[in-house]
Amino acid sequence: MKTIAVDAMGGDFAPIEIIKGAIRAKENNINVVLCGDENLIYPYLGSHEIPVYHYPEIISMNDDPIKSVRSKKNSSIVGCMKLVEENKAQAVFSAGSTGATLLSAISVLGKQKNVIRPSVASVLPSPSGNVILLDSGSSLDVKPKILYQYAVMGSKLFEILFGKENPRIGLLNNGEEETKGRDIEKAAYKLLQNSSLNFIGNVEGRDFAKDSVDVFVTDGFTGNIVLKTMEGTAKLQLDFISKSLKENLFKPLLLPVKKSLQPVKDKLNPDNTNASYLLGVNGVVIIGHGSSNEIATYNGIKFTDNALRKEFIAKFSSAYMDL
Amino acid sequence: MKTIAVDAMGGDFAPIEIIKGAIRAKENNINVVLCGDENLIYPYLGSHEIPVYHYPEIISMNDDPIKSVRSKKNSSIVGCMKLVEENKAQAVFSAGSTGATLLSAISVLGKQKNVIRPSVASVLPSPSGNVILLDSGSSLDVKPKILYQYAVMGSKLFEILFGKENPRIGLLNNGEEETKGRDIEKAAYKLLQNSSLNFIGNVEGRDFAKDSVDVFVTDGFTGNIVLKTMEGTAKLQLDFISKSLKENLFKPLLLPVKKSLQPVKDKLNPDNTNASYLLGVNGVVIIGHGSSNEIATYNGIKFTDNALRKEFIAKFSSAYMDL
Repeated sequence: MKTIAVDAMGGDFAPIEIIKGAIRAKENNINVVLCGDENLIYPYLGSHEIPVYHYPEIISMNDDPIKSVRSKKNSSIVGCMKLVEENKAQAVFSAGSTGATLLSAISVLGKQKNVIRPSVASVLPSPSGNVILLDSGSSLDVKPKILYQYAVMGSKLFEILFGKENPRIGLLNNGEEETKGRDIEKAAYKLLQNSSLNFIGNVEGRDFAKDSVDVFVTDGFTGNIVLKTMEGTAKLQLDFISKSLKENLFKPLLLPVKKSLQPVKDKLNPDNTNASYLLGVNGVVIIGHGSSNEIATYNGIKFTDNALRKEFIAKFSSAYMDL
Repeated sequence: MKTIAVDAMGGDFAPIEIIKGAIRAKENNINVVLCGDENLIYPYLGSHEIPVYHYPEIISMNDDPIKSVRSKKNSSIVGCMKLVEENKAQAVFSAGSTGATLLSAISVLGKQKNVIRPSVASVLPSPSGNVILLDSGSSLDVKPKILYQYAVMGSKLFEILFGKENPRIGLLNNGEEETKGRDIEKAAYKLLQNSSLNFIGNVEGRDFAKDSVDVFVTDGFTGNIVLKTMEGTAKLQLDFISKSLKENLFKPLLLPVKKSLQPVKDKLNPDNTNASYLLGVNGVVIIGHGSSNEIATYNGIKFTDNALRKEFIAKFSSAYMDL
């Protein structure tokens, strides 16, 4: 049975919520181990029999990822990667610093062949299913060739997850016309147009409401801001809705209406959905939302387990052959 | 009485919806004139007595703004600016190409003193009122000093529109920590921190759901994508909600619930709200949503009228003295 290394120290609510999420995963027959400071982990673990690997150093959101990954060899996230390297685990889940996760994965596991920069890919809801957005935060400054590689990664990920061959690839831009964008988008447009991918051209943020594209490709700065803007907008609108219903609706109707809306809340709730795939490294690495609570952690671990079952790495290796 | 020059040829549904919107404005006692091809305008104008200035050339979304503004001296948008220059009108409303509006404003009216780059500022809803986002699409590549100037512009605009002195300025970034962002955000952070503005630090897309900041400052590429992502997300969520209510709610309740939700739909509907201010040029220029229909055009013209009444230009001139 395959094992997932969980970074017990990563995330705004670590270690307690992470440990609770890991316990829940274990109870649901997912094999997990915890990496982190054992003195902080055992008190929350109680009688649950989850192996703990003692990596007492912590890389926080405020630390410089490059320096920290180099200097903190005993940090929990570096420890997770080492367990995969030593085949004591086959995958990593972390809700900690994306930069630290990315850099420790590169430094311990290495990049897959031909990959210039690994990418963080997020799965988001669409009107009739899902879309993938990448890069959602690993590299802030990129080159056109890197955007092209992201498109290849996103295409393969969509195919693996949703069984659709040649998914539609769109380049996120400030307009649909071919002439739109900064120099980097204009150059990436040409690379994509001349590739074997199913490139449908430039797409915009409003395409999230349509079923017009499967994979949104952009740099990590823009992607990260898009992801959080979606989160902010969804919450803002739900708050408006809640207020408007309270003000305008006959009171006894409130409860059934609220119940009817629950599935939508869950749909755009980052605690339920917002785990992302780190693509382009030699190992299955899943990045959870920084504000992951117990449920989000559990869902992120399930996500990781799912990726393991799909035999991700071998499939990606072959996809990257021609990069 | 002051007059607004309306670009009859700008926008996806020009000229018909633009003309209808102008007629509606006229009926509501706003003084308007139309700029564009008179052969295309008069058929829709009927017996309505709105002056028409014949500028038969059109700059489309596909045209290169720089070349077109130079070569098409008789385009409708350049005509609008000329009317302001000649004091036949005191403000411009256009739903056409943002780039062409920006460049024709710069070329005919000129930039205000000390302004490096004019900016497009959008007013968006917040939990308890409004926020301003700028730049939402005028300059895709900028320098730190330009972001600083945007902050000054946004601060003044917020003060004029909402009567709040020293509004809170946030730099849109991929994280709250001071170390976050690309080189440009890091440098802009320092400029803002050392300024007399009420700079609260880095903010994220999820801050749109909080009352934590008044003015979001970013480059035009990111701002434009944020704006359209908000639009896409709001629509996506409303579609989910509509579907969920239909599936889960007792049918007779649907109509009253739908009615109760109407104010929210209007709130995040770009046809109602999404007109933007072009700041930093010597004239009141308002940019409407590209997909403006009659109502959106009318609301955009009202927006323009409101800006005129607030004596925008003089107030901004003094704000830019120390830039």
